[in-house]
Amino acid sequence: MQDITRTLARRVVESRYGDLPAPVLHEAARALLNWCACAVGGSHHETVDRALAAVTPFAGPAQAGVFGRRERMDILNAALINGISSHVLDFDDTQAEAIHPSSPVLPALLALAEWRGFSGAELAHAFVLGVEVECRIGRSVFPQHYDAGWHITGTAGVFGAAAASGKLLGLNEQQMAWALGMAATQSAGLREMFGSMCKCLHPGRAAQNGLHAALLAQEGFTSSEQGLEAKRGFGHVLSTRFDPSAITAEWGQRYELSSNMYKPFACGLVVHGVIDGCIQLRNESRMTPEMIERIDLRVAPLVLELTGKTDPRTGLEGKFSVFHAAAVAVVHGAAGEEQFSDTCVQAADVVALRGRVRAAIDKTLLWTQAHVSIHLRDGRTVERYVPHPLGSLERPMSDSDLETKFRALTESIIDATHSNRLLELCWSLTELPDAAAIARAAVP
Amino acid sequence: MQDITRTLARRVVESRYGDLPAPVLHEAARALLNWCACAVGGSHHETVDRALAAVTPFAGPAQAGVFGRRERMDILNAALINGISSHVLDFDDTQAEAIHPSSPVLPALLALAEWRGFSGAELAHAFVLGVEVECRIGRSVFPQHYDAGWHITGTAGVFGAAAASGKLLGLNEQQMAWALGMAATQSAGLREMFGSMCKCLHPGRAAQNGLHAALLAQEGFTSSEQGLEAKRGFGHVLSTRFDPSAITAEWGQRYELSSNMYKPFACGLVVHGVIDGCIQLRNESRMTPEMIERIDLRVAPLVLELTGKTDPRTGLEGKFSVFHAAAVAVVHGAAGEEQFSDTCVQAADVVALRGRVRAAIDKTLLWTQAHVSIHLRDGRTVERYVPHPLGSLERPMSDSDLETKFRALTESIIDATHSNRLLELCWSLTELPDAAAIARAAVP
Repeated sequence: MQDITRTLARRVVESRYGDLPAPVLHEAARALLNWCACAVGGSHHETVDRALAAVTPFAGPAQAGVFGRRERMDILNAALINGISSHVLDFDDTQAEAIHPSSPVLPALLALAEWRGFSGAELAHAFVLGVEVECRIGRSVFPQHYDAGWHITGTAGVFGAAAASGKLLGLNEQQMAWALGMAATQSAGLREMFGSMCKCLHPGRAAQNGLHAALLAQEGFTSSEQGLEAKRGFGHVLSTRFDPSAITAEWGQRYELSSNMYKPFACGLVVHGVIDGCIQLRNESRMTPEMIERIDLRVAPLVLELTGKTDPRTGLEGKFSVFHAAAVAVVHGAAGEEQFSDTCVQAADVVALRGRVRAAIDKTLLWTQAHVSIHLRDGRTVERYVPHPLGSLERPMSDSDLETKFRALTESIIDATHSNRLLELCWSLTELPDAAAIARAAVP
Repeated sequence: MQDITRTLARRVVESRYGDLPAPVLHEAARALLNWCACAVGGSHHETVDRALAAVTPFAGPAQAGVFGRRERMDILNAALINGISSHVLDFDDTQAEAIHPSSPVLPALLALAEWRGFSGAELAHAFVLGVEVECRIGRSVFPQHYDAGWHITGTAGVFGAAAASGKLLGLNEQQMAWALGMAATQSAGLREMFGSMCKCLHPGRAAQNGLHAALLAQEGFTSSEQGLEAKRGFGHVLSTRFDPSAITAEWGQRYELSSNMYKPFACGLVVHGVIDGCIQLRNESRMTPEMIERIDLRVAPLVLELTGKTDPRTGLEGKFSVFHAAAVAVVHGAAGEEQFSDTCVQAADVVALRGRVRAAIDKTLLWTQAHVSIHLRDGRTVERYVPHPLGSLERPMSDSDLETKFRALTESIIDATHSNRLLELCWSLTELPDAAAIARAAVP
């Protein structure tokens, strides 16, 4: 594994669209759809407002749009802002190694597509490769790198953005190795920032710097050609463990997008099991809140540790209350952004039911699992054990589930017509003659 | 040292211009002058051409200039490019902890001054504080951080740029703590990049990202307020050693700029002793190359290890030849960029004398020291032991030495009139009503 940077560069450069299996391309469309939902849905968050205020006086020509808004700017700043907005709700896709794969990569590609014009197939191809690169590099240093305090979505994401942008720009092997080296030397992002606006700066900056790395490499701006494996390169400086073989193993046989996960609910994964169980029981029994005497939850210790707030007052506090999560799941049959708004957290029907939810620790459960018992006023009790919540690899969200999430996040920002149009464009990604149509449809 | 980020933020915010000692302000002018020389001198390097080509299509309004060139662009991109050009010749200032202090800080401040208008005193004050912040943070993790492979000019420099920009923008303590947090989470740059164009991307990106951190913080974009000291913050994630007391010790009593060093010769420090000794002997004996039979050098082992090329063919190779360094020192009485050009390395008189230089290892010498013996054809031998080369803290460059360096670097790019004007502006820094005059004078 002496030349892993060069080897990786060559694989990316030599990859052909025709080699990609159809299910991987379908997963690329699903990931794009989910990403668009998050980017549009997050586009009016105050984090995005503040970032835009700080960027706008310095932005360049109107080359690319901000998803969900009317602003247009140069592709580097557009990539930054779209990377921020798509992560701000913490609703974007995830991988087992804690990487959110789409948010550092798609903002760079969609901006490039608007600026230069690329087909949907070209964009899909570059996207698949960007996810390969970032997830494989992430795995080569996981978990030590993450445990040490690095926010891997930023640190690995910049490689994904560089490789994907470089593929779209048609870099040769030498230039691609430089782009990867420039990604290595800009790899950054600390987990200490979790809980602040800076968390979503990481995928934004990764998208921007990765894109810039590819543009610099295209102009012949040189970097090391051993950015990953050198003694003073990424692997050894940013991690106590570096396994370069993880970067190339099963290349072209196993695709990272095949193990991509999407979040059905707008809160931490620890309460997804509870929400899933509650929604299942509610729908099966056509339940209304008045029918319910009491809800008993059994959850792993971590769940109450992280989400034990019994009396949340704000939308944000609601995300840290398993009691609120169970209540909205039954009252609304959903747990999207709307269910974690201040209004919903303070709504009388939700508050009333929340007071009838009890939670007990069950050490036999994993933190992703839950057991829900709903005691009805008519004397019946309905129960559900959730071994794998919706959105896990074992029970992935269906295309239809993703569409429901998409509509919930986008329709209040771009109208239903635009939302439908954007949805159709995402599904037909690989057929699009001009991928820029996606960005154009994402504007209010 | 629980709240070191907050403490540092408070010290920077509360610092008053009137507290700064006059010698520190004079050193700020010297550092500015040296930095301007490097930025103008490096401004037409192909590294800068390529970076500009990669940035120009995306740059924003003409708010700030590129030193030594006619291009104008938004302040974030101007900070990037000027950070690159001022480090590209590796001729900028240095500190004992391997930081080049001016190149990450001044590009941000000079761009801000052009955009918003600040007095020379305000700029000098922010500059002094930026250097305090980056050098102290650098010292808190040195040498383990540097030894691990981090290019400390990038990793610490981004804090200096953020603090200095924040001071000029008038951030309050809360905003300054956020800006420092954003610097922490963008701290990057690997020593593996040495020898490639990417090395000077580090101060450029540090200037740009530090400036951007201050602008984001001003808009209320939040980050952790323990970016330096938290378990998953800069100090513990990027170093095995973190001594926060180094950040605040003797604050306001000892100034980092007081131990700033400037390079008189356009090559690695390891050959400065040889060059210094040769120039002294040449000038004292009014030597011409024809008078010389042979030059015998005694140097530390590291000198021959790094600069042992006996037969350099290009300017760049010349920088790695102690034989060439000795020859040009005698032939030209100088060792600036011109003496490390292809033309000079291939010039007949230089080649001839270079062939008469011998070097022997002397393990009793430090790598900064040298012993030079010049055997003349008339039978005499003149000798010089150089314990501390010109430019070291023990033998700093005089103001006049700096002016000579300044003229040599700038006059071929901006004419002598402009060069003189820029020199005068640097010396009168603290008296300038508008610091933007500096940038305006640095254009051809």
